[in-house]
Amino acid sequence: MIKAGILGSTGYAGAELVRLLLGHKDVEIVWYGSKSYVDQAFAGIYGNFFRIAENICKGEDMDALAEEADVIFTATPQGYCASLMNESVLSKVKVIDLSADFRLKDVSVYEQWYKIMHPTPQYIGEAVYGLCELFREDIRGCRLLANPGCYTTCSILATYPLVKAGLIDPSTIIIDAKSGTSGAGRGAKVGNLFCEVNENIKAYGVASHRHTPEIEEQLTKAAGAPVVINFTPHLVPMQRGILVTAYASLCPGVTAEDVANAYHAQYEGEFFIRLLGEGKCPETRWVEGSNFTDIGWVIDPRTNRVIMMSALDNLVKGAAGQAVQNMNIMFGLDEAEGLRALPMFP
Amino acid sequence: MIKAGILGSTGYAGAELVRLLLGHKDVEIVWYGSKSYVDQAFAGIYGNFFRIAENICKGEDMDALAEEADVIFTATPQGYCASLMNESVLSKVKVIDLSADFRLKDVSVYEQWYKIMHPTPQYIGEAVYGLCELFREDIRGCRLLANPGCYTTCSILATYPLVKAGLIDPSTIIIDAKSGTSGAGRGAKVGNLFCEVNENIKAYGVASHRHTPEIEEQLTKAAGAPVVINFTPHLVPMQRGILVTAYASLCPGVTAEDVANAYHAQYEGEFFIRLLGEGKCPETRWVEGSNFTDIGWVIDPRTNRVIMMSALDNLVKGAAGQAVQNMNIMFGLDEAEGLRALPMFP
Amino acid sequence: MIKAGILGSTGYAGAELVRLLLGHKDVEIVWYGSKSYVDQAFAGIYGNFFRIAENICKGEDMDALAEEADVIFTATPQGYCASLMNESVLSKVKVIDLSADFRLKDVSVYEQWYKIMHPTPQYIGEAVYGLCELFREDIRGCRLLANPGCYTTCSILATYPLVKAGLIDPSTIIIDAKSGTSGAGRGAKVGNLFCEVNENIKAYGVASHRHTPEIEEQLTKAAGAPVVINFTPHLVPMQRGILVTAYASLCPGVTAEDVANAYHAQYEGEFFIRLLGEGKCPETRWVEGSNFTDIGWVIDPRTNRVIMMSALDNLVKGAAGQAVQNMNIMFGLDEAEGLRALPMFP
Amino acid sequence: MIKAGILGSTGYAGAELVRLLLGHKDVEIVWYGSKSYVDQAFAGIYGNFFRIAENICKGEDMDALAEEADVIFTATPQGYCASLMNESVLSKVKVIDLSADFRLKDVSVYEQWYKIMHPTPQYIGEAVYGLCELFREDIRGCRLLANPGCYTTCSILATYPLVKAGLIDPSTIIIDAKSGTSGAGRGAKVGNLFCEVNENIKAYGVASHRHTPEIEEQLTKAAGAPVVINFTPHLVPMQRGILVTAYASLCPGVTAEDVANAYHAQYEGEFFIRLLGEGKCPETRWVEGSNFTDIGWVIDPRTNRVIMMSALDNLVKGAAGQAVQNMNIMFGLDEAEGLRALPMFP
Repeated sequence: MIKAGILGSTGYAGAELVRLLLGHKDVEIVWYGSKSYVDQAFAGIYGNFFRIAENICKGEDMDALAEEADVIFTATPQGYCASLMNESVLSKVKVIDLSADFRLKDVSVYEQWYKIMHPTPQYIGEAVYGLCELFREDIRGCRLLANPGCYTTCSILATYPLVKAGLIDPSTIIIDAKSGTSGAGRGAKVGNLFCEVNENIKAYGVASHRHTPEIEEQLTKAAGAPVVINFTPHLVPMQRGILVTAYASLCPGVTAEDVANAYHAQYEGEFFIRLLGEGKCPETRWVEGSNFTDIGWVIDPRTNRVIMMSALDNLVKGAAGQAVQNMNIMFGLDEAEGLRALPMFP
Repeated sequence: MIKAGILGSTGYAGAELVRLLLGHKDVEIVWYGSKSYVDQAFAGIYGNFFRIAENICKGEDMDALAEEADVIFTATPQGYCASLMNESVLSKVKVIDLSADFRLKDVSVYEQWYKIMHPTPQYIGEAVYGLCELFREDIRGCRLLANPGCYTTCSILATYPLVKAGLIDPSTIIIDAKSGTSGAGRGAKVGNLFCEVNENIKAYGVASHRHTPEIEEQLTKAAGAPVVINFTPHLVPMQRGILVTAYASLCPGVTAEDVANAYHAQYEGEFFIRLLGEGKCPETRWVEGSNFTDIGWVIDPRTNRVIMMSALDNLVKGAAGQAVQNMNIMFGLDEAEGLRALPMFP
Repeated sequence: MIKAGILGSTGYAGAELVRLLLGHKDVEIVWYGSKSYVDQAFAGIYGNFFRIAENICKGEDMDALAEEADVIFTATPQGYCASLMNESVLSKVKVIDLSADFRLKDVSVYEQWYKIMHPTPQYIGEAVYGLCELFREDIRGCRLLANPGCYTTCSILATYPLVKAGLIDPSTIIIDAKSGTSGAGRGAKVGNLFCEVNENIKAYGVASHRHTPEIEEQLTKAAGAPVVINFTPHLVPMQRGILVTAYASLCPGVTAEDVANAYHAQYEGEFFIRLLGEGKCPETRWVEGSNFTDIGWVIDPRTNRVIMMSALDNLVKGAAGQAVQNMNIMFGLDEAEGLRALPMFP
Repeated sequence: MIKAGILGSTGYAGAELVRLLLGHKDVEIVWYGSKSYVDQAFAGIYGNFFRIAENICKGEDMDALAEEADVIFTATPQGYCASLMNESVLSKVKVIDLSADFRLKDVSVYEQWYKIMHPTPQYIGEAVYGLCELFREDIRGCRLLANPGCYTTCSILATYPLVKAGLIDPSTIIIDAKSGTSGAGRGAKVGNLFCEVNENIKAYGVASHRHTPEIEEQLTKAAGAPVVINFTPHLVPMQRGILVTAYASLCPGVTAEDVANAYHAQYEGEFFIRLLGEGKCPETRWVEGSNFTDIGWVIDPRTNRVIMMSALDNLVKGAAGQAVQNMNIMFGLDEAEGLRALPMFP
């Protein structure tokens, strides 16, 4: 059994990790870490785990935890995981960080977008960006994994194949994303109250959201040249789910067949990527609760643009599910272990 | 492998059966029956099963199906399962009926509340009422199982122990129930449109809902004397979940300890019943997607009443999950097989 | 023009008062009071008032306000209005208190249920309980008005006529109430976050909710003898609306006609009470945004009980709307002035 | 009093017209037209109008209606209004058509996008496109008014000023729109059931939605040259509200001040357009129930694009409210008459 510890287990992403790991046959959770709920029973904080996870939450002591665990998941605020990182920890356990601390290779970009100083930039280099379907080989051997953001995963999976194949002009990429509210976390803020979110839709962080440079870095890799995009997130009155609607101009001469081929070539054999095909629109309800990402696209001959669409569950493929998928890869397990639950509808 | 066929697989309860059975290691679905979608791919009707259940829906031919399957689930309108019942079918397969056709022992009560004639009353006698935690022994050997209604399961599980133990006056029982909208089915009706259900709550079927006699029949068994109740269902703007708030006067001298003891005695060792205890209020979100029923209660010394509360997922423990639990019992499997998924929150 | 000041204008009930008073042809708001948002523009806190109410919020200084205003509305936490009450204020302005401070005539009941000491019990006696349709005459001349609670208004309007007419046994009254989430206020609490409230229903405050003694006091008046009830509130995933489902045993010999007559006799000519009639179920959507209360009832001959149902908008008839209605009565205006907006659907 | 008749009064837009016109001091509704509910009481179809509009629905006889009314609103399916249009009708009454029949000047574009033949193209020429803030002068004298679509109104109001002022490159315009579900109408379709819409977001009609040519026609006018755009609508789990997020590349040398100036120049003095300013994101909740359109924008120096955002209530400014505003202009009334209700929140 792999012994897993979770720092930040009492946030939404952390609790989703608990749910997934409790259903994973090769894993035992040995540490429910929390900042706000130390010494309280986990099941008292999340009633769904009543009689299932009555464990008492511990503080977030990564050094102590490194002695007990084989893998540590950090679902903690930006800067926290990095502040605890050291050679001693990394020599003992594998770390899967769900925060943004090790996602961006250029520390100055991190510091500019997150407005905090990175405390341990020396580990950025070795950290592997854990978008499983794209970087599986690098993930296998790593000891420090940067789990991608929710918007990012959805955005990159939709656009990467066409950028990589040179079918679209990267300078024309516009990503309009819509997210359920669990992405905003469990903090007690007026803006996230039921009456404020329900019966409303709004954009936020326009031209300034922190997932922008993360998307750009990966698309830059795909394009082989710097990519700058527009990324606009929106808050939708639902709990889970991210939908990305991305636009780009097709390069001269690109056909519908080229586009389809690029998607199929990229994702052939991928269990968690479901290509709906051209003319099909993914919907968040069809992936809810699962680790799937659904992708569809439309080509508009009137404007010569392709509209790339993708949907995933922000707490699963957008956070905890992908973290487990990464763990499976890192530990040489079946990649889908613990992640085979089908989407739940309605 | 147990070969299972589903008649009515394209309703919400039927599709939930598909979801659960696809995750059941001992079952193979051999027949996706449908009235409205014959010859269409199941995954085209429920996009969550894209690439998972691309099977083509067949008609609802129970005789043909009886040749192929070991167990048939009928998630069909009232009267339909009964109309297809015959000795030949029952001699070949086990039938688990999710409709109301074989729930009521008194055919005249059935015909009065459902306003239809029962076509095969001769099978009512042998049918077993499948409330697993109460009638497990009878379920084991049966070949025709009447799967309880959603409101009914929730109502009976909350009130049965106190009636059975003689702690409450059955003539004072009032059950106020609240249900999510999936209980209304997938039929295209104006009253179930998003804009009609959202931002609204209403009672319906007041003093006339068909689940009333079903609850009364079981409580009558528990009381050993005829029980007549008030049952009031309400429609809540959410997808899944039933909450029951039931009221009754305590018999003279009954203490809080007596009440707690009765619950614990009834449900000791039951995996799917979670007793939250006195003073605790169950919430539908804590059981969503799971087969659990959560039960809590409050004693009001000012009025000498006990308020009994229970919550379940109407599509799981209230329909498909309990059907699978019944199948597990009938086939001698671990009762929780295929039903261990934890509740999903948020 | 009547000059109105609002203490607590930045809560949901306060903001609803602003909305209604801005549409009232005889009123001018001279004071937007707030505890948390002093010196901020009201429209910055509630974007719906952008360019409409750009007024700057002031502190909650009742003495200063009493010099400027003709009427003061207090939509403030329990105990606050009472703590500011004095003869000087009452000699200058009329006070309409939306909190519970002056609703209960027995100060010990107040202190027991609200767990705070009443600072100015000497004004309880003169305060008038402002349930307009029942106590209009007393309201006319008063200077200190206790505006009823939301659950209370809905509960009393449904049950009062039958208690008063002696048609039901008051000792059998059970009130099962369901409320939208705006009733919980705009405070930043985890329990009121979108993801916690949505897709959930729960009871809370069972046998202990503070609106219980308020209902009991009024029904005791109606019955002419002490009435003790069960009152159970529930939280529903919607923004506005309260639905009450109340149960009671009919007295011997009472007919359906008696029940209908009692309702009609009580509410004849009342603009804001809409009697749907026997067998009809009110729905919160049909009153949303309006000051109406819809009432329907069902008689169950099987149990000899009557189920009394009522629906209102908790922020309008349950709070701000009734406060304006009371103001209209106190100032001799048309009672419906500023309250004629029709319910908005969908 | 202006006598108004409504054909299609029992759809959502029609019922909203009823709500607004009943609150309009100069209008009397003389005809509640309906196809599906002839001879039924309007209040039986929309319970919010209980005791308010007990009028009996009549058939949709435009000729008879033309004798009785001064203005006819048609909130009917595409092709219907056009099929009833004739000189006799137009000589007697003013017609405000909420369908698309007279919005597009080029009949072949209409027939191509709507897949129906236009029965009375001879009236297209004289019809005036009723986007009040842009074409007020033309509206004044007209007898046949084409009321704009909901998506269209929101899209044009956000983008028109910058196109007109030549600040953005029209060939780069991409409009990503999100709508509440009332826009889908009250038809009984599986896709609009609560359980299908709730907890979901999807795009639909990608690169093929019928509002596209309507937007293009108006922007072409503004640009003085043909404009072709991408328009992508999305369905959001809420009742009312449209949010538009539109993208375009700024022309060389355009400054933030230029953009702000263009908006202010276009909408100066417009009561129903609220410019939130640069860096501000409109939200549908702040306009719900009102005739306002809120507009904000962000300039992204990294990509040299401007993100233009607008929010309105699809049933008010997007349908019935703008129809009433048009009526006010056509009859020489105060343009805001009957439309002064403030947005309702929460």
